[in-house]
Amino acid sequence: MGRTLTYPKRDANTVNRNTPATYDLNAIHSIINSSQVLHVSFSPGPPDPFPAILPMIGQMGSFDYPSAGLDEPLDCYLHGYVSSRIMNLARKSEGDGLPVCIAASRVDGLILSLTPNSHSYNYRSAILHGYATQVTDEAEKLWAMKLITNSVLADRWDHTRVPPDNAEMSSTVILKVKVVDGSGKIRDGSVSDERKDKSNDDVTNRVWTGVVPVYEAFGDPVPSPENKVAKVPEYITSFIADMNERNRDYAVTAVNAGLPAEEQH
Amino acid sequence: MGRTLTYPKRDANTVNRNTPATYDLNAIHSIINSSQVLHVSFSPGPPDPFPAILPMIGQMGSFDYPSAGLDEPLDCYLHGYVSSRIMNLARKSEGDGLPVCIAASRVDGLILSLTPNSHSYNYRSAILHGYATQVTDEAEKLWAMKLITNSVLADRWDHTRVPPDNAEMSSTVILKVKVVDGSGKIRDGSVSDERKDKSNDDVTNRVWTGVVPVYEAFGDPVPSPENKVAKVPEYITSFIADMNERNRDYAVTAVNAGLPAEEQH
Repeated sequence: MGRTLTYPKRDANTVNRNTPATYDLNAIHSIINSSQVLHVSFSPGPPDPFPAILPMIGQMGSFDYPSAGLDEPLDCYLHGYVSSRIMNLARKSEGDGLPVCIAASRVDGLILSLTPNSHSYNYRSAILHGYATQVTDEAEKLWAMKLITNSVLADRWDHTRVPPDNAEMSSTVILKVKVVDGSGKIRDGSVSDERKDKSNDDVTNRVWTGVVPVYEAFGDPVPSPENKVAKVPEYITSFIADMNERNRDYAVTAVNAGLPAEEQH
Repeated sequence: MGRTLTYPKRDANTVNRNTPATYDLNAIHSIINSSQVLHVSFSPGPPDPFPAILPMIGQMGSFDYPSAGLDEPLDCYLHGYVSSRIMNLARKSEGDGLPVCIAASRVDGLILSLTPNSHSYNYRSAILHGYATQVTDEAEKLWAMKLITNSVLADRWDHTRVPPDNAEMSSTVILKVKVVDGSGKIRDGSVSDERKDKSNDDVTNRVWTGVVPVYEAFGDPVPSPENKVAKVPEYITSFIADMNERNRDYAVTAVNAGLPAEEQH
C-alpha cells in the first residue's frame, strides 16, 4: 500500500470535534488546490486587535521538485498585488516569514435531519499553518504564476499573451508559504439522527429528511465585446464540461458514502 | 433618496486596491447572509504564532430590533460547538470579547483576458471586524438558532422537531459578534485589458476573451434511507428552484454590468 504522509499534530491544528479529521497530505492538498478562493489570515499586530483575512488565489506546488505529487510535502503559492498589506508585512517580517493560516472550504450538500441540532453540511475543509515570504527568484515566480493561472482554467497560460513583461512582473507578488502543519475535515453521507427522534412517529411522519447536493457550476462562456476569436476554444469548453460533471458527481456520490449498495441513489 | 449607512474607515478595514470597495452596510450584510460558510479568524496567542481560521455558519441580525433591515446596524451570530477552541477563548476573554475577523467570498465568474495579469474573478467578498461573546440569554440563543437554521434552507426550522431540548441547548453555543467595522469588494463586468495588448492583432486574433459565469447549484434532493415523508415538501423544492435561478441570474447578469444595452448577452 506504500506510505501515507501526514502532517504532525500540534495544538494549533488538532481537530477536537467528532467530525472525521484528516492529517493526510494528499487529502488536504487536494482540497486547497480545488478551491477557487483561499482565505488567508494574518495578524497585523498592535495597535490593531483584530486578525485580518484576505481572499486570495493559490496552489500547492514544489518548484524544486515540480513532479512532486499531492501526497508529498509542498509549498503553498499565493498570488497578490505589490501594494497590499499582507505583502508589506511579509517583506518586513523577520526570521522565518509572516505567520499565516490558510483555509479552504467547499459545501457539498445540505444535511436535512429531524432536528435543527443534527442539521449539517456535507463539506470538505482544510487549513494550513505556515510562514509566508515573498518569492524573489524570477524563474520561481514565473513558474508559480503559470501554476496559479492554470489552476483557474486548465491550460489557460499558454493560450494567452505570455511571458509577462517587466511591468507585469513587478506589479505581481507571489508569496511562498512554508507549511508547518495542516488538517482537514471531510463530512459525507446522509443524515444522522438520534434514537429518541427516529423512534418518534409524530416526528418521522412529518419531517422530510435527506440531502440536497450542492456544487459549483460553470455557465456558458460569454465573449467579451472585444473578443475576435469566433469559436470558444475546445480547452475552455472541455474544462467547463469536465468541471460541471466532476463537481456534480462529487456532491451526489458523497450522499451515498457509507450506505449499503441497495440504498444508494 | 434617504440615508445610506456605511462602516467607518479605519486602517484595519480600508481597502487599498483599485477594486471597487464598499463600506455600505446593506451590501456587506447581504454578502455575509448569502454565504453558506463564513471564515472566522482569531488569534490563539502565545506560544502559538499563527492566527486560526474556522469555517462557521452565521447570519447578521438584531435580537433587540428583529425587524431591522440589512442596511441597519446588526450583530453577526455564529453557530458552534461547546467544546471548540473559539468558544473557550470567547468565554475566557476579558473586556469587550474575543477580537475576530469574519470573511465571506463568492466567485461569480472567471475573467479570461488577453494576459495572465489581467485575469480575474467576478466576485463578492466582505469582511467584518468585531468582538465575539457567548450568548447566555436563552431567548436570544433560541432566536439566533432559528435565524441560522433558516439561513441554510428557508423556513426549515418550523418543519423540524422543535424546540431543542435541554441537552441540545447546552451542546450548542451561539457567539454574538459586535461589529466594529467592515468592508466589501464587488467585481463585476467583463474583461479589462491594456491598450498595448488590445491593439496587437497577433494577440487578439489568437486569444479568446470573455467570462465564464460561476454559481452555486443545488441538485435534486436525495431522501435519507429512513425518511418516511413520501413527497419532497414544497418549501424545499421551491427553495431549490429559487436559489438556482437567483444564483445563475446573478452570475450571468454580472457579466453585463457596465456594458451598453446592445452589447449585453
